[in-house]
Amino acid sequence: MKEERQLIMLPGPTNVPDRVMRAMMKPIINHRGPKFEALYESIMENLKYVFQTKNEAFVLTSSGTGSIECAFSNLVNSGDKVVVPVFGFFSERLRETAVRRGAKIIEVPVEWGNAPTAEQIKQVIKHEGNVKAVAIVHNETSTGVTVRDLPRIGKITKENNVLLIVDAISILGGDQLPVDDWNIDVCFAGSQKCLTGPPGVAVISVSDKAWEAIKRNNNRPYYFDLMRIREYSAKKATPFTPAIPVFYALDEALKVIREESLENRFKRHATCAKAFYSGFEALKLTPYPKEDVRSNTVIVVNVPSKVNCEMVRQVMRERYRVLIAGGLGKLKGQVFRIGCMGIISQAETLATINALENALADSNFPVDFSAGVEAARKGFQS
Amino acid sequence: MKEERQLIMLPGPTNVPDRVMRAMMKPIINHRGPKFEALYESIMENLKYVFQTKNEAFVLTSSGTGSIECAFSNLVNSGDKVVVPVFGFFSERLRETAVRRGAKIIEVPVEWGNAPTAEQIKQVIKHEGNVKAVAIVHNETSTGVTVRDLPRIGKITKENNVLLIVDAISILGGDQLPVDDWNIDVCFAGSQKCLTGPPGVAVISVSDKAWEAIKRNNNRPYYFDLMRIREYSAKKATPFTPAIPVFYALDEALKVIREESLENRFKRHATCAKAFYSGFEALKLTPYPKEDVRSNTVIVVNVPSKVNCEMVRQVMRERYRVLIAGGLGKLKGQVFRIGCMGIISQAETLATINALENALADSNFPVDFSAGVEAARKGFQS
Repeated sequence: MKEERQLIMLPGPTNVPDRVMRAMMKPIINHRGPKFEALYESIMENLKYVFQTKNEAFVLTSSGTGSIECAFSNLVNSGDKVVVPVFGFFSERLRETAVRRGAKIIEVPVEWGNAPTAEQIKQVIKHEGNVKAVAIVHNETSTGVTVRDLPRIGKITKENNVLLIVDAISILGGDQLPVDDWNIDVCFAGSQKCLTGPPGVAVISVSDKAWEAIKRNNNRPYYFDLMRIREYSAKKATPFTPAIPVFYALDEALKVIREESLENRFKRHATCAKAFYSGFEALKLTPYPKEDVRSNTVIVVNVPSKVNCEMVRQVMRERYRVLIAGGLGKLKGQVFRIGCMGIISQAETLATINALENALADSNFPVDFSAGVEAARKGFQS
Repeated sequence: MKEERQLIMLPGPTNVPDRVMRAMMKPIINHRGPKFEALYESIMENLKYVFQTKNEAFVLTSSGTGSIECAFSNLVNSGDKVVVPVFGFFSERLRETAVRRGAKIIEVPVEWGNAPTAEQIKQVIKHEGNVKAVAIVHNETSTGVTVRDLPRIGKITKENNVLLIVDAISILGGDQLPVDDWNIDVCFAGSQKCLTGPPGVAVISVSDKAWEAIKRNNNRPYYFDLMRIREYSAKKATPFTPAIPVFYALDEALKVIREESLENRFKRHATCAKAFYSGFEALKLTPYPKEDVRSNTVIVVNVPSKVNCEMVRQVMRERYRVLIAGGLGKLKGQVFRIGCMGIISQAETLATINALENALADSNFPVDFSAGVEAARKGFQS
């Protein structure tokens, strides 16, 4: 296995800063001892900052998908009505997890490339009655869509005493998401996306309103039981052996975020996203999502006709050592997906556009050489 | 947080070899690409060697306890009869996980410090009728007991067409456990015990008989769904983003095991365990478990009267930098628990006994100085 360095422009995992990688080399410690307590405390403080919340927050030893399972199995029981807008591969996954939990799904169909609106959610809640929760993927990693109406949706769920569950897996730490201001009851994300940790843990926040529902649920699972997790958290511990090296890395990654500040971080992501969209437009590549819901953390563009998506990705990987993703589900072969996450700066943005330009030229797509890079560069000139 | 090196003689996590730690520094890669496929293939080959199985085996991004949840939620449904011998803290956990899944538990009570016998299991299966599974903790980490009757229990479950679920969290890779020869249907373990990886993933093997039960179960969870995990495994992938650095480390740890061979590894653990027991006997410390069921991977000895367990552990940690564990559940303050795992050799064994001797002397326990170390050393002379 060759180990040369690649530029990881996937929508997760993403490039992990060296200081975060090195944190994993800290000695293994007892997870029931004072050193772990100090580590736990440090993570918790910065995690609440990232969630912008006064709620309790926790770290789960699992993939991001584990946190979806955690949310539903603690909050939802068989027969509970859950509203799920479905507008991509990952909102389908959210729906499927709720289905497995026995929830009665009220699906809000939304065209892929678009986002659900507050008005739609309001109508569904009103029409259905007795809705327990609305579960939304805030950033659809498959289509590059961000639900810009989320703050308004949070007002509606609050007014109607409905729980708001937000899958923020590919956006937390990369774009605005104030959990308390937006009335989000449960919010979760993976370590390996905008938080720039290595993959291996997930994070989750839980509101007082959510705790009420969790307490009433007498059918909680064992591994993901939030009541037990909360009980250990009060002692700065986890109920089961945590992924210690990934906890170290998450701690360091959160420190990096705090040092930069969320505000600066969100600006940086927005600037790079804008540069990506300008660059691709100059290359005559069209973004997949509608303009007003385009994500700042996952850039999705259509593969031009007659261009083979996999071949372009392979050339980018092998010749330029830049990794981007292809489409998922029904978008397989149809789109390129690029992570605009974490350490993203002018350097990575231009290198990615440059690699894609060249790989497209290698695929005989007519490229106005450097037009993409030129257009993107303008976005960085202040 | 001071970062001086400690000798981790806990019953997990344990000392991780440097080459295994360093493996975590390999670059983050796409988990949907050729490099990850090569990593996955390498892990699978050596994992089957460690399980001594032709069954399929998988890696879960979770703690060991996640693999318990995985086993029960795939194999067991509401109302299914599950026989669980309970003889310590971790068999209580196994029982609790099955209870949460809705299983009808047939508990086999066994005195702590002792192990269930094949005869007991046989009688319960016969008496109850219609038993779906027997679930056993093979190595009770809380009491230092190994179920030496496990091969005979496997014959009985096979004859009665009952599933055998074995929690091998603290023993796989440290003592004999041939999954196929012993007719074990589902066997699981954590990465951070005898496998000497860092914590963060669990491993699980699944027999053909178990697959039949899993296929019939239409109430599987999402995150731990073994059918989905199997489907992705066929493509050398995981359904959800894996803990890539911990996968790298597990791969390296399994290579270390293969290089040494299971046979040599089991001998080494047995030799060190015997030395521990001899050393403690010379120090007038009595093992907690009955002699014929003593574990080779977790050594549990009674705290002498008038000695404060926590104080001794604190002195060992702060003055001698050796970490050992105290008792769990009803054994809190009553026992010392020592991991005899992974890299364990004469050096770590004698250093631990020496540290305990000195810490006991610091606690005014009458110590015949070096008697423990002397007795233990004899076990290493060939």
